[in-house]
Amino acid sequence: MKDSYIEKKIYYHDTDSGRVVYYANYLKYFEEGRSEYCLSKGIKLKELVDMGTCFVVGHVEIDYKAPAGYQDTIRVYTKVEKLGNASIVFWQEVKKDNLVLVEARTTLVCVGGDLKPKPIPADIKPLFNK
Amino acid sequence: MKDSYIEKKIYYHDTDSGRVVYYANYLKYFEEGRSEYCLSKGIKLKELVDMGTCFVVGHVEIDYKAPAGYQDTIRVYTKVEKLGNASIVFWQEVKKDNLVLVEARTTLVCVGGDLKPKPIPADIKPLFNK
Amino acid sequence: MKDSYIEKKIYYHDTDSGRVVYYANYLKYFEEGRSEYCLSKGIKLKELVDMGTCFVVGHVEIDYKAPAGYQDTIRVYTKVEKLGNASIVFWQEVKKDNLVLVEARTTLVCVGGDLKPKPIPADIKPLFNK
Amino acid sequence: MKDSYIEKKIYYHDTDSGRVVYYANYLKYFEEGRSEYCLSKGIKLKELVDMGTCFVVGHVEIDYKAPAGYQDTIRVYTKVEKLGNASIVFWQEVKKDNLVLVEARTTLVCVGGDLKPKPIPADIKPLFNK
Repeated sequence: MKDSYIEKKIYYHDTDSGRVVYYANYLKYFEEGRSEYCLSKGIKLKELVDMGTCFVVGHVEIDYKAPAGYQDTIRVYTKVEKLGNASIVFWQEVKKDNLVLVEARTTLVCVGGDLKPKPIPADIKPLFNK
Repeated sequence: MKDSYIEKKIYYHDTDSGRVVYYANYLKYFEEGRSEYCLSKGIKLKELVDMGTCFVVGHVEIDYKAPAGYQDTIRVYTKVEKLGNASIVFWQEVKKDNLVLVEARTTLVCVGGDLKPKPIPADIKPLFNK
Repeated sequence: MKDSYIEKKIYYHDTDSGRVVYYANYLKYFEEGRSEYCLSKGIKLKELVDMGTCFVVGHVEIDYKAPAGYQDTIRVYTKVEKLGNASIVFWQEVKKDNLVLVEARTTLVCVGGDLKPKPIPADIKPLFNK
Repeated sequence: MKDSYIEKKIYYHDTDSGRVVYYANYLKYFEEGRSEYCLSKGIKLKELVDMGTCFVVGHVEIDYKAPAGYQDTIRVYTKVEKLGNASIVFWQEVKKDNLVLVEARTTLVCVGGDLKPKPIPADIKPLFNK
């Protein structure tokens, strides 16, 4: 993790027979980007799960502007756009050099072990915007 | 393809260690649903590609309401919400029994071999709403 | 499940930019084939897991003979080759029409909740060869 | 690429509801490992494809010894075990710290644009064992 982005290289398993990255796979890269963003802020998602707090995806809006292909190197930029009581909205961009390929807004909902929404724990909430 | 839906069964490869279907995988089911919808209308996407017409995903909005899990059987319902000059908006729902799990609106853009937008060919456009 | 095979249709998400099915994805189809084989014999893998018996993959040998591509329909044939004390060897073939595309031999090991090998429960063992 | 291995971190998309990495996904990591091995030797698989030489997977043998889980960091070690006239055998290991999780032997076959086997080009063959 350098600053606010992760770097990914595209392999065959990322692509489809249209010769570009398959559209669903960007959601995997976005998961990785959010995970590394949280870690860089001191938020350990894995430990939170063990303590009964989980962030589940509630909504995604995604714009596909240009494709990535085999052996391209892309960067996934991640930032928090809005921090709510029981939810977080992430804004993420995939870039190849300076070209924006894909943009996404993802809403995560904070849930307990019963999968019901609950407030983001007070000790980790400030970390998201640190 | 029965009517306007496809049926899918969930296997391990669909799930993640949160014990539910991984959020990106619904986009695979939506691809399958749109593909079967088109076939049921007489639109053969594969032949269209060979003739230089391709539909690429430009935008997706997706709402996750409830999870599916291992060995669940789900149905993916597909319909055309809006038919534009060079684009189509699909509305899709994933249901388990009568419960809506996931809803998505996907905009496909009609492009030529150069990946630039072009009008939907006149001979296939009426088929989408048949 | 018809007889001893399942039928699958290939979509974009199955393929890679080499314009054929990505080599790892056959292992997903083999999982599906084994799961349906077991169900057809009355072996419910999901219920077994809940009762502390799980079959994990220990070894796979796979031969790739010919590729499948977008919109092909394939059949995955599954049978039990060898039934051991704590393991089962499955033999599986992927065919397109009468052409064998891929063959695989997969060894599953019966484990308990602690992931340590244990004998296949006496009440389900006979079902595998029924 | 450091020396002969790549490092990967495990995310939700790598795992399944058994709470471990899904068995097919190791084949993706092996693809990445072989790709980076080749690049480190000066073999650019992408350029070779454009020049009509492709390496396709013909055979895989894989042993699963221990599982990896969410947020584990694994290393994929890659080396050439045997260099034939028209094929290469790779030996690969996935390790977590010093523990071997998975071992695989993969045979790649050199093919032309017609997907028929052909000798490995004389100018790149020596690079594999450099």
